[in-house]
Amino acid sequence: MPTRPAASARQRVTVDTGASRYDILIGAGLLADASAWQGLPAAAQALVVTNTTVDPLHGAALRHALAPHYARVGTLALPDGEAHKDWPTLNLVFDRLLADACDRRTVLFALGGGVVGDMTGFAAASYMRGVPFVQVPTTLLAQVDSSVGGKTGINHPAGKNMIGAFYQPRRVVCDLDTLSTLPARELSAGLAEVIKYGPIADAAFLDWIEAHLDDLRARDPAALAHAVRRSCEIKAEVVGADEREGGLRAILNFGHTFGHAIEAGLGYGEWLHGEAVGCGMVMAAELSARLGLMPAAFVGRLARIVERAGLPVRGPRLGAARYLELMRVDKKAESGQIRFVVIEALGRAALRPADDATVARAIEAHCA
Amino acid sequence: MPTRPAASARQRVTVDTGASRYDILIGAGLLADASAWQGLPAAAQALVVTNTTVDPLHGAALRHALAPHYARVGTLALPDGEAHKDWPTLNLVFDRLLADACDRRTVLFALGGGVVGDMTGFAAASYMRGVPFVQVPTTLLAQVDSSVGGKTGINHPAGKNMIGAFYQPRRVVCDLDTLSTLPARELSAGLAEVIKYGPIADAAFLDWIEAHLDDLRARDPAALAHAVRRSCEIKAEVVGADEREGGLRAILNFGHTFGHAIEAGLGYGEWLHGEAVGCGMVMAAELSARLGLMPAAFVGRLARIVERAGLPVRGPRLGAARYLELMRVDKKAESGQIRFVVIEALGRAALRPADDATVARAIEAHCA
Repeated sequence: MPTRPAASARQRVTVDTGASRYDILIGAGLLADASAWQGLPAAAQALVVTNTTVDPLHGAALRHALAPHYARVGTLALPDGEAHKDWPTLNLVFDRLLADACDRRTVLFALGGGVVGDMTGFAAASYMRGVPFVQVPTTLLAQVDSSVGGKTGINHPAGKNMIGAFYQPRRVVCDLDTLSTLPARELSAGLAEVIKYGPIADAAFLDWIEAHLDDLRARDPAALAHAVRRSCEIKAEVVGADEREGGLRAILNFGHTFGHAIEAGLGYGEWLHGEAVGCGMVMAAELSARLGLMPAAFVGRLARIVERAGLPVRGPRLGAARYLELMRVDKKAESGQIRFVVIEALGRAALRPADDATVARAIEAHCA
Repeated sequence: MPTRPAASARQRVTVDTGASRYDILIGAGLLADASAWQGLPAAAQALVVTNTTVDPLHGAALRHALAPHYARVGTLALPDGEAHKDWPTLNLVFDRLLADACDRRTVLFALGGGVVGDMTGFAAASYMRGVPFVQVPTTLLAQVDSSVGGKTGINHPAGKNMIGAFYQPRRVVCDLDTLSTLPARELSAGLAEVIKYGPIADAAFLDWIEAHLDDLRARDPAALAHAVRRSCEIKAEVVGADEREGGLRAILNFGHTFGHAIEAGLGYGEWLHGEAVGCGMVMAAELSARLGLMPAAFVGRLARIVERAGLPVRGPRLGAARYLELMRVDKKAESGQIRFVVIEALGRAALRPADDATVARAIEAHCA
């Protein structure tokens, strides 16, 4: 089991996709730590893109950190929430960049959770065909998952994240102190993605999570530091091997195919993404067991961990047929064929098709 | 001087940016030539994106060519014209792709001029974070310039091509027969980009253009074949060396900084892009002469070629101050600094700053 680092120590994880290479900095107090902001691309202007919830909490600290590096640091606070992850809101970023005469060296900073990060990243990918951007995630989910790896985008009324780009940030700065203001429900949602890394990549990390779940929910700084670092290490490794989801990267979607059906079936925003993933992982574990890959005890163990993380373990009663229908229009499906991320052994995932009847039984075993 | 190939011979030019490699096929009758459509990415669905002007002319031929390769070939005819190169029109492509349940293997085909190519390319870059696309340019301008090199995008009310991506096609198929239906004014606009390649990269090609301008305007098949092939060769070479306009690629913007001011100053759509570039090249030649790089005779020679191509050689009377103002908000400017593409020797271009007074005199020397 890895030793727990001191909470104050700054961690550095490097992502290397071949085409680009950048650091994830992890630590307490990074927003106020001048060294975290050195060596970024030079420009006359920077624009902090955030939302109206996060800006009052951390906007001033980030602007203060950036002031020595850019002649002008603007702020654009978008409306908060997944409902605004759409074109009209994204266009506010372009409106502002053009109103401020921002040129193609301008650096964008995404200060917030996954929605802000995805939208700012896509704005950076698209403004003048690409300007540099930096992720400053302030939720656990964004720190351990969405800010790393270069997936950016917006929703279309007919589907989530349907419009976007693979576009890597120049740096990811995870200030663990920002997690202290995070609502408990969102902390739990982030834990779903932390838990995910155990079954798919690191059995010892799953043991560690199991042993430290209470510390994590109590926001123990050392426990959070370790969880974020190990999650980022695993994600960096996977993304470095497969930036564009040719194969390996798909294992990061463990629980996401079932989770997608829950989110889409209830209407986005009803359950948090992490909540749907938590429950989806239980269904995916059940599928792994029913396919004879894992013992039934694994399903029970994972369900207890998910439940202790404060996440739902029973899906909404949409009916298995509706789940299957929703999974087939997921963008991970190809020609209507769904490949499920299953666990072959603790710490090892694979992609497998599965017949509808088996999938239906896995769903029904874990519906409310 | 290069020999002129037979019009019927198919030419192949390869673009290699390091990250991607694809062929430009050039020839008469390619839409109906089965071999031009082999070896493209396999998928269940293809979507032809075109416009309401081009679809009746060439849509059926392309659908016929694609039918053996895809179970379903859809067509989306967008409204014609630069005024529709915007988000709402782009979103029609996403609406259609989602309505047809197109997955991430779906191949898009851009059948039309620069607007269709730029929009389809950006749609392909962004749909599910990237699906393959093929350029099938049907205007001279698109065949010699915009379909090659991976610049895609849409306009923002505050600026042209401000939102987009560098995203390379899998193939470019230039059927020279499609040029027979092109209005004369658009043929001339395309010749502006053909002429451009002479001064910036190939003095002998400028001689050839000068000798064959009448053939080109008369749409002599052999002359068009050579003009398209040599233009694509030069563009492929430049883009291969510098995909993202770090330096060398900027020479392709010869005449475009002045041209941009003309287009923006009059309101986009008043002059065709190629018309503005034609006149802009004369101003850029004048600037090169005034900076002592080229003899005055070069300005006169280029102006005569541009005029014989059917293009305007005198800019609108916006006033030099307005030209300068408009050039400074061009996305090619950085921190308000304009770097002009100038000719240092016939066939060799460079990027240079220039003082406002000299630029103003170059503009005023060629205003109506």
